[in-house]
Amino acid sequence: MRAVDIIRNKRDGHALDAGEIEAFVAGVTSGAWPDYQASALLMAIVLRGMTPEETAALTRSMVHSGVKLDLSDLPGVKVDKHSTGGVGDKTSLILAPLAAACGAIVPMMSGRGLGHTGGTLDKLEAIPGFRVGLSLDEFRAALRDVGCALIGQTKEVAPADKKLYALRDVTGTVESIPLITASIMSKKIAEGIGALAMDVKCGRGAFMKTRADSRRLAESLVATGNANGVRTTALVTAMDAPLGRNVGNALEVIECLETLKGRGPADLETLSVALAARMLLLAGITATFAEAETRIRAALTSGQGLEKFREIIARQGGEPRVVDDYKRLPGAAKRVLVRADRSGYVTELDAELVGRATMVLGAGRDRVEDAIDPGVGAIVLAHVGAEIRAGDPLVEVYYNNEARLPAALEMLGRASAIADTAPATQPQILEIVG
Amino acid sequence: MRAVDIIRNKRDGHALDAGEIEAFVAGVTSGAWPDYQASALLMAIVLRGMTPEETAALTRSMVHSGVKLDLSDLPGVKVDKHSTGGVGDKTSLILAPLAAACGAIVPMMSGRGLGHTGGTLDKLEAIPGFRVGLSLDEFRAALRDVGCALIGQTKEVAPADKKLYALRDVTGTVESIPLITASIMSKKIAEGIGALAMDVKCGRGAFMKTRADSRRLAESLVATGNANGVRTTALVTAMDAPLGRNVGNALEVIECLETLKGRGPADLETLSVALAARMLLLAGITATFAEAETRIRAALTSGQGLEKFREIIARQGGEPRVVDDYKRLPGAAKRVLVRADRSGYVTELDAELVGRATMVLGAGRDRVEDAIDPGVGAIVLAHVGAEIRAGDPLVEVYYNNEARLPAALEMLGRASAIADTAPATQPQILEIVG
Repeated sequence: MRAVDIIRNKRDGHALDAGEIEAFVAGVTSGAWPDYQASALLMAIVLRGMTPEETAALTRSMVHSGVKLDLSDLPGVKVDKHSTGGVGDKTSLILAPLAAACGAIVPMMSGRGLGHTGGTLDKLEAIPGFRVGLSLDEFRAALRDVGCALIGQTKEVAPADKKLYALRDVTGTVESIPLITASIMSKKIAEGIGALAMDVKCGRGAFMKTRADSRRLAESLVATGNANGVRTTALVTAMDAPLGRNVGNALEVIECLETLKGRGPADLETLSVALAARMLLLAGITATFAEAETRIRAALTSGQGLEKFREIIARQGGEPRVVDDYKRLPGAAKRVLVRADRSGYVTELDAELVGRATMVLGAGRDRVEDAIDPGVGAIVLAHVGAEIRAGDPLVEVYYNNEARLPAALEMLGRASAIADTAPATQPQILEIVG
Repeated sequence: MRAVDIIRNKRDGHALDAGEIEAFVAGVTSGAWPDYQASALLMAIVLRGMTPEETAALTRSMVHSGVKLDLSDLPGVKVDKHSTGGVGDKTSLILAPLAAACGAIVPMMSGRGLGHTGGTLDKLEAIPGFRVGLSLDEFRAALRDVGCALIGQTKEVAPADKKLYALRDVTGTVESIPLITASIMSKKIAEGIGALAMDVKCGRGAFMKTRADSRRLAESLVATGNANGVRTTALVTAMDAPLGRNVGNALEVIECLETLKGRGPADLETLSVALAARMLLLAGITATFAEAETRIRAALTSGQGLEKFREIIARQGGEPRVVDDYKRLPGAAKRVLVRADRSGYVTELDAELVGRATMVLGAGRDRVEDAIDPGVGAIVLAHVGAEIRAGDPLVEVYYNNEARLPAALEMLGRASAIADTAPATQPQILEIVG
């Protein structure tokens, strides 16, 4: 089976069979396929698409390019959540302890932030001492003892994805639902899970800008998960404005702790509970969603979720006293307020601009090799729907590097729209697929 | 202008502007664009297409990647012919001397054969001593003195095309009318010509199998030539069966000499005259096609074309006595006849099978580095339309290497179809574009 024949098949709009797809993925992994052949096939996939069967086969081959964890010695259906990425999207740090507190086993492997969206690993590393680089043995032991561990993807997991993603990034082949599906699902399936709640972000601050695209991705993720033995449900959720009020790594950890204490913002609590309850249902811990929601809410109100998070932090080498003492988290030396230039209602708060502003301050990275500053970020003081007067504070900016401030303030100054009438309320969860 | 943004533009179906196309071609030529980005853009071009303006700009940038000959010190409009490649397609060796005998200046740069189709350079090199590797100064001097010179593409001409073609060959991106157009036309425009007759082959033995595809390529070639200051006409001509009777390098030289002596097969003579007359008309040597045809026929009948070919051979270091003595050409040690297994009419003679059979014998090459045997080939004894009896010879095979014979005979045995009724006569020239 020559590479050029496989490329030509896809170019001509034919579905590739599992053998052709395996040859491609194995060839990319081993280096037998040169990059120029891989990128030609990737472009053909972007423009010709893939059937659900091809996407499932691509995902399977990418899983098989590395190690798939066997967690069958742990009881029950292992369950995870994954988000396609948003601004202020910190639900993992809330729902993972909540689900684990209700008896779920949550083997969560996450990524770092890139561009305007944050990453779970960066947030966790804002906690002094927290180790996201557990070995697979340590990961397994933590899961057995605590029920949840949060780590980075190890290099053993889906190495084909790392190679393909690097190539897609420089060849204009990122934007493809089959390729995005296989990239996400191969890493999740390799965790050894049996169930997955997907959070597909939709809107201005998300990768998918439209409902139609978000739904297509959600359907593809669900079909691919189910075809590979992972019960999958996808929620399509709004990402026009930041989720919650805090953006920036230490600031987001604080907001998660506040939420686990019952004092979080409504949008963040609602979504975290919905996803955590979906995890319990998918894992078969409850028979109905209502029951799952009741269990998760009880774990929240009782403080069991907060205690589980403290336990996770301690287990992974972090400073557990941050739970009660936020001063133990990294901070920012300076603060400044962005104020409203007119009275009215906040009708928009552009998630992408907020995300880019905090990235510029050092909360995120433009390139994978950039270092981040865990203490900086922004707190939204007047969220969408708030009634304000001219001069009221809209956003509080936490910063360390004076030189980076003007660019961030320029973006934040453009992020809010203010009008005379209150905006219509938008639902948080737009759709449930699967 | 980042490579990835240019790739994304084409991927999304936008037309690239001249600056983007120039960045691509210059980047490929210099190596600043890695192959994996070039191949991603090539695949996007294959699937998204290019407008006539983009194709013209791509061609122009490929011309500018190397040297464009300036032949303005020679009088009149310099004119060439180019064929997209067929089996037994030897018109260059007939029409170039005929057109030059009528006063045209013909700076012809040709390629070598690859796969089942032959190449002009390989045919010329069957003539002992013939040098296709003239320097550009020698080329220019030969044009001044003889009116015609036939050489290979020098490495100074359109270097971008060499790099792109090598990449297209291994990435499934050969089949694209804009890319084929730019590849052909950049090399022709770089010759410094002002007019071009294109022979677009159509049928089983050609790259373009259908009338519709051939017409689209013809239109693209004509539009691109005209947009770059080269008056271009394209003939779409039949290539289901071999052109003429002889296939193989020395055998084809003999058939060209016979044709220049007025004893060639009708199909070959007709097409050679039509193309040569088209060249005179395009170069402005005559005002009408009829007048051009009369001039070319006169050069044929008078023997002026034959004498011009003798002159060309002598000028390029070849043995001019081959014109009168075919034994001075390389031959084959052995011959064998393929005979008809039934009586009837020859209704088909598959050009591709005949081409592949002679390639196997050593007349052509499978890979660019293969050596060829100039003496081997095949002579068609019963062409399409011939009435035959069982046992009559269909094809005479000229060979040197016994080991290669069985595979060639197997293909030749399948090449002819024989039926009870005579086939309908097919026109040689299917369409004239431009």
